[in-house]
Order: sequence, then structure tokens, then C-alpha cells
Amino acid sequence: MSELGEVTRHRLVVRFVETDLMGIVHHSNYLQYFEAARVEWLKARGVSYDDWVRAGIHLPVVDARLRYQRPARFDDALVVAARVAEVTRVTVRFSYEITREADGVAVCDGETRLACVGQDMRPRRWPAEVARLLGS
Amino acid sequence: MSELGEVTRHRLVVRFVETDLMGIVHHSNYLQYFEAARVEWLKARGVSYDDWVRAGIHLPVVDARLRYQRPARFDDALVVAARVAEVTRVTVRFSYEITREADGVAVCDGETRLACVGQDMRPRRWPAEVARLLGS
Amino acid sequence: MSELGEVTRHRLVVRFVETDLMGIVHHSNYLQYFEAARVEWLKARGVSYDDWVRAGIHLPVVDARLRYQRPARFDDALVVAARVAEVTRVTVRFSYEITREADGVAVCDGETRLACVGQDMRPRRWPAEVARLLGS
Amino acid sequence: MSELGEVTRHRLVVRFVETDLMGIVHHSNYLQYFEAARVEWLKARGVSYDDWVRAGIHLPVVDARLRYQRPARFDDALVVAARVAEVTRVTVRFSYEITREADGVAVCDGETRLACVGQDMRPRRWPAEVARLLGS
Repeated sequence: MSELGEVTRHRLVVRFVETDLMGIVHHSNYLQYFEAARVEWLKARGVSYDDWVRAGIHLPVVDARLRYQRPARFDDALVVAARVAEVTRVTVRFSYEITREADGVAVCDGETRLACVGQDMRPRRWPAEVARLLGS
Repeated sequence: MSELGEVTRHRLVVRFVETDLMGIVHHSNYLQYFEAARVEWLKARGVSYDDWVRAGIHLPVVDARLRYQRPARFDDALVVAARVAEVTRVTVRFSYEITREADGVAVCDGETRLACVGQDMRPRRWPAEVARLLGS
Repeated sequence: MSELGEVTRHRLVVRFVETDLMGIVHHSNYLQYFEAARVEWLKARGVSYDDWVRAGIHLPVVDARLRYQRPARFDDALVVAARVAEVTRVTVRFSYEITREADGVAVCDGETRLACVGQDMRPRRWPAEVARLLGS
Repeated sequence: MSELGEVTRHRLVVRFVETDLMGIVHHSNYLQYFEAARVEWLKARGVSYDDWVRAGIHLPVVDARLRYQRPARFDDALVVAARVAEVTRVTVRFSYEITREADGVAVCDGETRLACVGQDMRPRRWPAEVARLLGS
């Protein structure tokens, strides 16, 4: 059975430093929130960064898409739901939905696609156990 | 005469803090590079943030799209070319191309769409002089 | 009874973006960790940022001191212990100790001093209830 | 002849993302500005990060001290003056003064001490040519 589509939720509280002079979370921070949730998704399935390194692979982001729906503010508790949206032989696409914990309001959603590359930054196929984990 | 499509170039040198443990620029930084180039685009046309504030408008980013082509590294000099790609009554879309100064290699490209909103964060039409500037 | 010296602990997990190409947490991030713990200290005592704003005061950092003992790494769980070290009529000094949760190893310690200023960024005395809270 | 005390100046323009909801540059950014100036200091003397790596050494920051004098704001042009303040067999201390370019107003000053360590993060003496460069 594939785990494709299973969601992991990451909770975070907006830091002061993440706001800008408009008084809202700067839009570049959401890529960092996405990443934290992606790490959590992997950790929940027993995969750590050290495992990638031991397998001799890196996972650079190759593209990203974000839609900002409502501004988040300092000290807001946010929930980032992450799931795998698509897996190919050399890439994986995660999708994300960020909501405000207090009232469930949609704050931001988006996607990032990551490539499987070796130490030389050239594409390579997923190791078998990773492919299994990602549900491909 | 419309200025639509005119390019402004912003040069920057990658900071140490902008790298991550893969040894490359973290992908969230490119939204910050895009923004710096957008500010430069506006400044080159005589518009400063204070002007927006005086006009009672904010310009939050409402969506973004990035494509990472080649990793940039610590101390790389990068050139961010920014231009206006589309203007509607309440939004403007900027597009960006980042190249490595030394050899012109394409590093990252993308787009951000910004909305014209009032202090209350609700959409409003561009002030006339801004509309003119943006080439709409 | 003064709360001077009482400790609040803030737990965080190191984000990927917070590392640098040395593979360790970039040293500028610790000021952000200190701040998150300071916010937690205040929240634990019923004070939110909105309260400062309503009271018409800002709390800019006027000096900081950090000592980096051991590097923290991606995905390390860290505990930031914050307490008030000194209060004067117009400033408060917080001190911090960051340890690695897994083994209690000291990672970083330091202090930040904040000034009480009005909207005009000029020093002013603490409002009475804040002075009480800070234990002065 | 020792270069001890010679100053290198690094110019930068405050990015929007570097501000916070107080409308001023977040205090953690100054460590990043210090670092950019330190890199420039070294580059001006022919030293690049690749040279450190080839020499098998890292330069983690072991302590830092900052004094915030006046807030800097979005789009301010700042000048960071960096110089070597002290060199020991295994450390170097840089000092920094940041001023606003437009009027020379002092914005922030401080110091960072860096240790010479090997790949294993243990202290080691400066390579001879580095010691010479640092003026020890």
C-alpha cells in the first residue's frame, strides 16, 4: 500500500524576526515553513537527513510555487500540512497547506519539487527503499 | 509610452549566511533576491517605499513561482534582472532571471504577483500615477 | 515577590535553512532563538506584543553578547532557558542558556538588553504594571 | 609590516526582508552585515573561502558583542567598517562600525571572535601565511 497522499502536520509559532515592516510574515519565510513540514513528514516515516547523506544523495529543491491567501502575524500559531503529491523516478513533489491554528483560516499553500541528485549534483534514481517510502 | 518589459538589473554577492549545509544558497533566499531587484526596479523609476506609504497602499506578494536551475554558492556574484510582466487593475506581476555574473549561467528564474491593497489589506485600484509607471 | 531570575524554557528544532555551509547553525540565528525564548518568557507571564503596542511602547534591543560553546546541527532539539538578569528604570537585561536537549550539552549562552521606548523611539520609563512584572 | 588595524569598508542597502514589524532592521541581521564585511576584508587581502578549505581549516565564530545605537530602516545605505582588533595563536577578533552612508550616523558597532579549527572542529594554530596576513 502506497503512502502517497498521507499528511503530516507541523506546528510552529511565528517568530518576531519573521515579520516585516508591513507587520506580517515576510513571504520568503513560507518556503522555510514548508521545509520544516517536509522534514517532519520524512521523520514521521523514519527518515533523517543522515540517512540521505549515508545513501550519498542530496535533495535540492528544483521548483516551488506559493499562493499567499491571508497574512500571518507575529506569534500566530500555524499548522503546516505536508503530503507527497507526485513521485517520478528522479523527483518528488510535496504539497503544503498552512492554516492558522486558532480558527483554521487558510494562510498559504504551495508546492515544492525536489530532485534526487548525487554528491556531484547530477540526477540519479531514488534508492529502492526511498522509492518505497515515497509511495512510487 | 509604456515601460512594460523594461529590465532593471540588481547585482549582489551571496552571503555566507545564505548558504546551507548542502553548501549552496538556500532556496528561500531567491525570493529575497527577487524582492531586492523589484525594489531596484521601482527606485530606478523614482518610486520609493515612502511613496507607497504616503499613497496609503501596501504591496503584499500574493503568489510566487520559482525554478532553480543551477545552485549558486557562497561569494558568487549574481545579477537579478527584473521586469514587469503583467499589470491588472489591482495587481502587478514581476518576472526575474538570475544569472551568475562570471559566466552568465542561469541560476534561477521566477515570478511574483503583488496586489495593491490599502492599510486594511483590502484590494484597491492603483493610484493613477502608479498605473502609469507600471505601464498599464 | 519578585519574579526576577525565574526561568522560562523554550524548545525548538533546528531548521535546515538555519545551517550554513560549515554544516552548523549560523551564529546569527542564536539571536533569533534568544528572542523566541524572551517572547515565551513574557507570554508565560501573560504579556503579549499587543499589550506593548496598546501601552504605546517598543522594546528594541540595545546591546547583545553571545558565546558559542558547541555547534548545533540540523534537526537538533535545543532548549533555550531565558530569565531576567537586571532591570533598570528604562532597560531590561535578559540572559539565555541554550543546551542540546538530547544530552544537555551547552551550545550557546548570552544576554540582550532592551530599552523601553515610545513610538518616537525615545527612552521612557516602564509602565507600572510592566515594572512589576519584570520584578524591578 | 603588519596590517593590523587596517580597515575595509563594505557597503550594503537594507533589504525589505531584513526589517521587522517595528519598521527597523531586525537586530540579528547585524551579525550578517558584520560577516559580509569580514569576508570583504579577507577578499581585499587575497583570501577566499576556498583558501580556508584548501588549508583544511574552518573559522567558526566563538563570541560576539553588538551595540545598537540608532535603528536602520528599509532601503538605508549602510557602510560597515571592519578591521582586525586582536590576533592570538588560535583566534582572531574583528571589530566593526556600521554607519548610515547618507549622514554618517553611527548605527551599530561590535566585535566577533573567530577560532581557527580543523575539519574536526578542534582548535589549531593559524597556518603561517594566514598568521602573516592577520598581522600577528
